[in-house]
Amino acid sequence: MFKAKLTNAQLFKKLIDAIKDLVVDCTLDCSKTGIEMQAMDQSHISLVSFELKASGFEVYECPKNLSLGIHIESFSKILKRVGNNTTITLKADQSSDSLGILLSNPEETIMSEFNMKLVNIIGDSFVVPDSKYAATIQMPAAEYQRICRDLAIMGETVKIIVDQGKITFSSTGEIGSVNSSLKQDNSIDGNSKIVIESDEKVEAGFTFKYLNFFAKAVPLCEIVRLNLSHNSPLVAEFEIPELGNIRYFLAPKFDNEPDEVDMDKEDDDN
Amino acid sequence: MFKAKLTNAQLFKKLIDAIKDLVVDCTLDCSKTGIEMQAMDQSHISLVSFELKASGFEVYECPKNLSLGIHIESFSKILKRVGNNTTITLKADQSSDSLGILLSNPEETIMSEFNMKLVNIIGDSFVVPDSKYAATIQMPAAEYQRICRDLAIMGETVKIIVDQGKITFSSTGEIGSVNSSLKQDNSIDGNSKIVIESDEKVEAGFTFKYLNFFAKAVPLCEIVRLNLSHNSPLVAEFEIPELGNIRYFLAPKFDNEPDEVDMDKEDDDN
Amino acid sequence: MFKAKLTNAQLFKKLIDAIKDLVVDCTLDCSKTGIEMQAMDQSHISLVSFELKASGFEVYECPKNLSLGIHIESFSKILKRVGNNTTITLKADQSSDSLGILLSNPEETIMSEFNMKLVNIIGDSFVVPDSKYAATIQMPAAEYQRICRDLAIMGETVKIIVDQGKITFSSTGEIGSVNSSLKQDNSIDGNSKIVIESDEKVEAGFTFKYLNFFAKAVPLCEIVRLNLSHNSPLVAEFEIPELGNIRYFLAPKFDNEPDEVDMDKEDDDN
Repeated sequence: MFKAKLTNAQLFKKLIDAIKDLVVDCTLDCSKTGIEMQAMDQSHISLVSFELKASGFEVYECPKNLSLGIHIESFSKILKRVGNNTTITLKADQSSDSLGILLSNPEETIMSEFNMKLVNIIGDSFVVPDSKYAATIQMPAAEYQRICRDLAIMGETVKIIVDQGKITFSSTGEIGSVNSSLKQDNSIDGNSKIVIESDEKVEAGFTFKYLNFFAKAVPLCEIVRLNLSHNSPLVAEFEIPELGNIRYFLAPKFDNEPDEVDMDKEDDDN
Repeated sequence: MFKAKLTNAQLFKKLIDAIKDLVVDCTLDCSKTGIEMQAMDQSHISLVSFELKASGFEVYECPKNLSLGIHIESFSKILKRVGNNTTITLKADQSSDSLGILLSNPEETIMSEFNMKLVNIIGDSFVVPDSKYAATIQMPAAEYQRICRDLAIMGETVKIIVDQGKITFSSTGEIGSVNSSLKQDNSIDGNSKIVIESDEKVEAGFTFKYLNFFAKAVPLCEIVRLNLSHNSPLVAEFEIPELGNIRYFLAPKFDNEPDEVDMDKEDDDN
Repeated sequence: MFKAKLTNAQLFKKLIDAIKDLVVDCTLDCSKTGIEMQAMDQSHISLVSFELKASGFEVYECPKNLSLGIHIESFSKILKRVGNNTTITLKADQSSDSLGILLSNPEETIMSEFNMKLVNIIGDSFVVPDSKYAATIQMPAAEYQRICRDLAIMGETVKIIVDQGKITFSSTGEIGSVNSSLKQDNSIDGNSKIVIESDEKVEAGFTFKYLNFFAKAVPLCEIVRLNLSHNSPLVAEFEIPELGNIRYFLAPKFDNEPDEVDMDKEDDDN
């Protein structure tokens, strides 16, 4: 019997919120070490994955590996019932065609026990290559959200340029254009919130819509790290303190390319 | 001349909000003892009634009995203008075809004087039998709301089971099922917030939509009392401190019955 | 090069919000003394103008007079990005076809630089005659909003009556009628918030919709002053502390007149 209990059910709610605009169905792969998920969005432009460590749960039991096919919208509806003091417990066994989701107060006098039907997912499997990146930018997650809101006013395509301790997001639309930028923040005590590291000038274009989807992970954590190379995929990493992380991968968009590029095209060619 | 003044106009606003999803028109029966209202919803599945005691008002004058036909939506629109410090005064006389609604600040330097047209209502009259109930459950009103929000995710029908100091609301829908339950809360000082009394196991089914309408009374009070018997109507009572109460009656729904049961069918048969 | 910097960008945002329901395009006339704007709504029933004094800005440079044609909706979209601590800087030069709008934090480490396309506006020019008014009413801006919300429940036309230290706004609609009134507030310390001055009884009718548009200026300031004469245009003045003011002019509506009266008709006849 698989069982995972998290006292801070809000974290789980925010995690599913962070993927629900990208993914319709996904598979939770449960093993002794924790829960993993990896899924492509339907247009195959981006990929999202998360890892939740077994040690981050108050109770975690998984004697046998288990794959749970989740319909995100249904799960999200149930998780809307999570309040500030809610504890969540997930339960399933090998043969079951549903996931038990128990929401309760800490004293367990008040309990809502949901059973959510599981779905069959024909899995794509894909390997994300471990790359070196030409630029790494760390910023408060709230700044990432601010930049997305600036860009939302303008066009569909965003150019990101990292150069000399500064990152700039640019977009042009019908009513004009916008440059949203952040500078390295050289605090005296060494606790810089904005850290911009790059060996060279890095420039890459992306479809705004996906950058904006990734901003849904902002409520989960305080810091986001962006990894970039020239005209290459972007990786946005959000750490979830003590529990794990969520990562987004986004294929670049080229100026002369009117259509969207498939994220797993590169894999096909190899 | 009928005149009723309430310093806490918010109470009156919440009262009308508590019936506006159920009832289109209703009659306020004003007498020396206070204001009474009783109305069935349009499908005749449920009945709502309230009593406001004359002693609960700061000023209450009603020399002759008076029936005021109210169009709830219009009344509700006007009551939206009630703020935190608003005093309400209702005024009408025997011959008038409108109700005067005066909203003011406590000093009466700022006044909004509405005249709302009255409507003619051809009255159903019905007697609610005073029954004994097999189970009585008292819970914080906020818990009643929580349960309704759990149930809203699932199906149209709810089964309520009271057994051994526990009440469970169950519903099944497309995406799965839910059991939302409360246990007797045995506090040491005798101030239990959740009190579950029953002689026997009680089980009854209801249409969710109406249970949810009743949750509109939650902002009016802290405690709700549910009265239940096996396959019999449910009574939900909300006390309004110092002013009166609001009560909802709901016909049960049987498994083998596809259509809704008429609340006043029983009366017709007698 | 025109340059105007305001540390409290919220003021600028609220100013544009205060005209955006009335006006589609407008011209900002920038000169050494400050920025002026004057525009009629599309139906020519009302006129709005504002003045922002050069001395109200932290930085203000305008070596040559400049007229900037603004598309209000675009400007408003960009100004939605103004937060609590945002500084705004406007930049343009004689030949440019766009307005630079720089939003930043006080330290200027975080910057959003927008370029908004300018539009060509074929200008109406109109002179607002400096009149004497039979009645002047000063009230908290929040009271003006309260009255508009009362009136919104009823009809399209509002009658304003000023008489004996009292102002009353009346309207009649389908569900009944409303009289919303304010009395002179004779405080001992002479700091009356409600001051009602009139030589005679003044009565005038107006289209509610426009009175309600003017309420959009309420967040800008604490006090509104209404100037009225018998069956004459209304002037509503909102002072913006230290920066300037915004004024609305509204043509009266007569009982026997089904159609709306053109605000600049009088000018045409002269």
